[in-house]
Amino acid sequence: MHQVMEWNEDVSDAVKAELAEHNICLINVLGSPGAGKTSTILSLIERLRSKYRIGVIEGDIAGQIDADTIHAQGIPVVQLDTDGACHIEAMSIQHILKEFDLTALDVIFVENIGNLVCPAEFNIGEHFRLALLSIPEGDDKVEKYPLMFATSQALAMNKYDLKEYFGFDDERVERSARGVNPDVQVFRVSSRDGMGLEELTSWVSHRIDEVRGTT
Amino acid sequence: MHQVMEWNEDVSDAVKAELAEHNICLINVLGSPGAGKTSTILSLIERLRSKYRIGVIEGDIAGQIDADTIHAQGIPVVQLDTDGACHIEAMSIQHILKEFDLTALDVIFVENIGNLVCPAEFNIGEHFRLALLSIPEGDDKVEKYPLMFATSQALAMNKYDLKEYFGFDDERVERSARGVNPDVQVFRVSSRDGMGLEELTSWVSHRIDEVRGTT
Repeated sequence: MHQVMEWNEDVSDAVKAELAEHNICLINVLGSPGAGKTSTILSLIERLRSKYRIGVIEGDIAGQIDADTIHAQGIPVVQLDTDGACHIEAMSIQHILKEFDLTALDVIFVENIGNLVCPAEFNIGEHFRLALLSIPEGDDKVEKYPLMFATSQALAMNKYDLKEYFGFDDERVERSARGVNPDVQVFRVSSRDGMGLEELTSWVSHRIDEVRGTT
Repeated sequence: MHQVMEWNEDVSDAVKAELAEHNICLINVLGSPGAGKTSTILSLIERLRSKYRIGVIEGDIAGQIDADTIHAQGIPVVQLDTDGACHIEAMSIQHILKEFDLTALDVIFVENIGNLVCPAEFNIGEHFRLALLSIPEGDDKVEKYPLMFATSQALAMNKYDLKEYFGFDDERVERSARGVNPDVQVFRVSSRDGMGLEELTSWVSHRIDEVRGTT
């Protein structure tokens, strides 16, 4: 296992080098099944597509429901089917990048497998990670699954419109997240009513510009 | 990996043999982070504790928040900390059974790691599996994570009180589940208002009696 991890780090560096050649920013989007990864990516694309040329890699252990949704928006999307595996590895990204016209892209979103555990252990050549935690999952998840939140540059609490219904303590989540990751950016968003999406978009855009050296 | 799986099957059989010696029924409870595994186990315990002597194995990758909750109910509970691993293996169960007084138990619930992928691949000596899918996760999860639902004898759609809010298509879920698992029992439950819990309890109790030969 240790060797697999080391090898993954090497491939992750190679992916990053290839992205640098084309000045592309890769964003790794992580979260539980149903946390709202696809809808958040769609919300960000809607707000960023006038500024950047965007592609999506859609990770799933089976099927291509989400890829179809994104394709319907006219965005280049490639399905990455892990055939049952619980995470995406850098080698899969290296392989799948060949299916894009990289000269026509500025940003690639990777929707990782819905899982709070394994995807956190594998770098895939990303420039930053965006972790999603949806309110119905409960306010103890950072304490229970610390690695994902420790390794993500931003945490978005999604479905925030349900906070009162679930008695969700967002301060607890923010405190726990900062406990494992003092520099984390915390957002409160809702795809339902659009709350917080401008702030999240603005932060993501700023990070993309930093990575691409266009600030 | 293949060898690990085969070895796990052997250990799983050994766990089952040890449980049979003490006439104990082991129930593997699976679902995403925040699907409501702990609260459903607590609801079942509340309704079953007058009939059976119950213990709990609480799987987590870090911490013991859920174990503390169950301990507070006066139920024997042992924490199984996987130290970052994404699932429970039979060997961990074999090891942890030593921490219980098996002569004083009829039923053991195992709360698996919050994850729809990896736990499904590992038998842990269970007599049956109960899979939870909570409404906020979305009605496409059976299609996206088929193995868990194909290998579980029962599926409980939890937080059913949120069905309208999320426009959740429970018929689609039931249809998909029967597609991969024609014999699956499907329940609609809500820990919030108690809906469906009597039916689920009654089915679980019936299965326990079958396993223990007391029907």
